[in-house]
Amino acid sequence: MKIIYAGLIGFGNIGTGVVKLLRSNREILEKRLGARIVLKKIADMDISTPRAVSVEKALLTTDAGEILNDPEISIVIELIGGYDHARSFILDAMRKKKHVVTANKALLATHGNEIFQTAEKEDVDIGFEASVGGTIPVIKTLKESLVANRIRSIFGIMNGTSNYILTKMTDEGKAFDAVLREAQDLGFAEADPTFDIEGIDTAHKLAIVLSLSYGKKVRLEDIYREGISGISQKDIEFAKELGYKVKLLAIARERETFVEARIHPTMIPFNHLLANVNGNFNAFHILGDASDSVFLYGQGSGMMPTASAVVSDLIDIARDMLKGISRRVPARFHREEGMEDIRILPMEDIDTKYYFRFSAVDRPGVLSKISGILGANDISIAAVIQKGRKINGAVPVVMTTHESMEKNVRKALKDIDQLDVVQGKTVKIRIEDEETP
Amino acid sequence: MKIIYAGLIGFGNIGTGVVKLLRSNREILEKRLGARIVLKKIADMDISTPRAVSVEKALLTTDAGEILNDPEISIVIELIGGYDHARSFILDAMRKKKHVVTANKALLATHGNEIFQTAEKEDVDIGFEASVGGTIPVIKTLKESLVANRIRSIFGIMNGTSNYILTKMTDEGKAFDAVLREAQDLGFAEADPTFDIEGIDTAHKLAIVLSLSYGKKVRLEDIYREGISGISQKDIEFAKELGYKVKLLAIARERETFVEARIHPTMIPFNHLLANVNGNFNAFHILGDASDSVFLYGQGSGMMPTASAVVSDLIDIARDMLKGISRRVPARFHREEGMEDIRILPMEDIDTKYYFRFSAVDRPGVLSKISGILGANDISIAAVIQKGRKINGAVPVVMTTHESMEKNVRKALKDIDQLDVVQGKTVKIRIEDEETP
Repeated sequence: MKIIYAGLIGFGNIGTGVVKLLRSNREILEKRLGARIVLKKIADMDISTPRAVSVEKALLTTDAGEILNDPEISIVIELIGGYDHARSFILDAMRKKKHVVTANKALLATHGNEIFQTAEKEDVDIGFEASVGGTIPVIKTLKESLVANRIRSIFGIMNGTSNYILTKMTDEGKAFDAVLREAQDLGFAEADPTFDIEGIDTAHKLAIVLSLSYGKKVRLEDIYREGISGISQKDIEFAKELGYKVKLLAIARERETFVEARIHPTMIPFNHLLANVNGNFNAFHILGDASDSVFLYGQGSGMMPTASAVVSDLIDIARDMLKGISRRVPARFHREEGMEDIRILPMEDIDTKYYFRFSAVDRPGVLSKISGILGANDISIAAVIQKGRKINGAVPVVMTTHESMEKNVRKALKDIDQLDVVQGKTVKIRIEDEETP
Repeated sequence: MKIIYAGLIGFGNIGTGVVKLLRSNREILEKRLGARIVLKKIADMDISTPRAVSVEKALLTTDAGEILNDPEISIVIELIGGYDHARSFILDAMRKKKHVVTANKALLATHGNEIFQTAEKEDVDIGFEASVGGTIPVIKTLKESLVANRIRSIFGIMNGTSNYILTKMTDEGKAFDAVLREAQDLGFAEADPTFDIEGIDTAHKLAIVLSLSYGKKVRLEDIYREGISGISQKDIEFAKELGYKVKLLAIARERETFVEARIHPTMIPFNHLLANVNGNFNAFHILGDASDSVFLYGQGSGMMPTASAVVSDLIDIARDMLKGISRRVPARFHREEGMEDIRILPMEDIDTKYYFRFSAVDRPGVLSKISGILGANDISIAAVIQKGRKINGAVPVVMTTHESMEKNVRKALKDIDQLDVVQGKTVKIRIEDEETP
C-alpha cells in the first residue's frame, strides 16, 4: 500500500484529535483512500505533558525544522495557531513544495493574500476546511457544491462561545456576566474572551467566507463588527415578546457592485433555522441564485469535530497526490494574479430594520418627541412596546422600525439621546427577518 | 480558453434548468473553472415544445446517438429519468469513455452495481449529486467532507412531496386526501403519487446514501418501507399533544455488523432540527463518530436548485479533466471489485419507541386488557392519553412506549386487535427522540 507522509506542527487539543482520528479510523481511511497516511513527525514546544493519546517518543520533536526539512514529508499540518510562527512555518513548507493543512483562521484572515499567492506560485495545495465552522463543510460547499451559483447572501453563526452565552441568557434568564463566568469555568470561554465575544473571531471567519464567495481579496478592517457584551437580559426578553431571538450573526450580502459585510447581535424570527442553533453549535444559511437556501449546521469547535475537518483536507490532498496532481481546485476560486479587492458597503449605507430600547422618563409627550425625531430622519416605526415598570427611574420604551438607513439611525439616536426626557444611551439591535428559510 | 464539450440527454424541467444556468452564470463559471463548458447537443424525444429557455434549433436532436457517438463530447448529462433508456445511454456513454452526470436515483438504486462497475472498468467518472437531496451537497459531504468518519446514523427527509403534505396537514389541520389533491393541482404531486407518498422515491435515495456511507452494495428490497397514506389528522393532533411532529423519515443506523435501513412516518420532538424542515424542503442529519451532528438542508427538487447540483458535478468532472485525470474520488468510496453486500437488520429485530392509537369500546377494564397484552410482550408504557370523546362509537386510547422490539409489538397488536373491546386496526407510529441535535 502506498504511504503518504505528513508532519504535524502543534500538538494541542486539535492536534491530539488528528492523531487519535488517524489511528482510530485507520482502517476505513485506508479503504476509502486506497493508501495510508502516516504521521511521521509531531512538533510542539511542549513534548513532555501527557496528551489524550499516547505517542511514541521518537515521533515527537520540539524542532519544527525536522518536519519542514524532511523531504519524505509531503503534507504539513499547522495547528499551532497565532501569527508569526504559523505564518513562517506555512510559507516555508510551501517553498519546500509541501502541501499545507491549517485551521488558522486568524492567520488566513490577515495574511491570506501572501499565503494563497505563495501556494499558487509553488503549485501546492492549502486545505483550510477546519478554519471556518469546525466540522461543517462550508469551505467545500462554497468552492465546489455551490460553484455554479452567484452567492446572494450568507448568514452565519460562526462563534460557538458567543452562541453558547446567548443561548444560556435566553434559556435560563441569566445575565451576560454570570453566563460568561460560567463559560470560563467550564472551559468554553477563554480567560480573555475578547476575541470571541467582540466578534473578532467571527470577523476572521467571515473574511475567509467572503473571499471564497466573491473570489476577491478582503480587508479585515472593512468588516463592520459589534460584539455581544452590550446585550442585556432586558433586550433578550423584549426580543422574545416580539417573536425574535438574539444571535451574533455574520452577514454577507451581494448588493450590486458592493457586498455587505457585518457582524453584530441580530434579532431573527423564532422559526428561522438559525434561531434554533443553540449552545456552541455553528451554522451557515447560504442563499445561492440557483440553489436557493442551503443550510449547514454542526460543531464549530471541539477536538474530534475539528479533527474530522482537518483529516478530510488531508485525504483531499492525498487523493490529488495519488493522481499526481495538485491545485485541482484553486485556493480561492480564481487565479490569485490580478485578484481584485472586494468592495464592502460602508456601514452607514446599510438598510435594515432596527430594535430600539429607549430609557424614557415617565412624563407626557416623551413618545411624541422620540417618534418626531425618528420621523424627521426618515425612520418609520413598525411596533411600539411601552410598559409601566420602571428600571432605575426610567421606563423602557421599545420600538421596532421598517427598513431604515444606518446613517439616519445614528443621527436620530444621537439627537434622541440628548433629549432631557431620555436617560442613558439608547440600545440598538438590528433585525433581519426577510430571508427566512 | 479551453473548451469542454458536454451533451444533454433529456430536455425536461431539470435539463432546461441546466441550460439556463450554464448560460446565466457562464462568466462566473469560466472564472472559477478557468475553462468553458459548452453544451454541444441536446437530445429529447420532443424538440418542438417551447421550453423556459430558447435554444438554437441546430443544438437539438431526437437522436441520443448524436451525443453518444460524438467523439468531441466528453461528458454526457442524463436527465431523462426512468430505467431502460437511461441505463443503456449511460452504459453506452461510459463504454465510449465519456463521463456521466445523472440525477436518476431510481436507476442508481436498482442498477447501481452495473453502472458503478462499468464506470470503474472504463475509468470514467459518474456524478450523481442531484440524485439525492436536490441541491443539498449530501453526496459530496459523505464522500469527501466526512471521509474520516464512521457514519453512526443518518436521519433524512428525502421526499419533498410527502413533506409538503405532512406540513400542510400539521399546519392547516387538513385531511391527507384534501392536501394530496391540492398538491396535485399545484403540480407538487404526480397524478399517480405512489412513488412519493409510499416511500419508494425515499427508498431509492436511502439506498444510494447507505451504499456511500458503508461502502457496500444495497438490495433495495431489504429496506423497510411504509408511506404516509395511513397518517390521519387525529394522529397528527395527538403527536402535537405529546410534543412531536410526524415526518416521513429515512433512517440508516450502524448496529455492529448490521445496519438499520427503514423508511416510515416517525414522530420526532418539536425542537429537533428535522421537525422544523417544512414544505418541500429536504434535510439530512448525519452523525459521524468524529464530526458529531452535521445537518444539511435545502431544496430537494425544483428546476434551478437541482440544476445547481448537476452543474456542480459537471465542474467537478471538468476540474479532473483539466488536470488530465479521472476517478479521483471513486463512485462509492471503495473499489467496486469484491464489494460486499450491506447486512440490513430485519425490521422485526428493530428496537424503537412507539405511539399506538387504539379504538377502544368505552367499557371498564379495556385499559387493563390492552396494557396486560403489552406487558406480556415486554412492551412498557411511557404515557397514556385517554379522552372522553367518541369517534365512530369508539374512544381513542393513545399510548407511547419505551424502547420495544418490533416483533413483540407486531405480536401484541395482533392480539389486541382481536379483543372484543377494540374496534378496527390499531394505528402504530414509531418515535425517534434520542438523537436530538
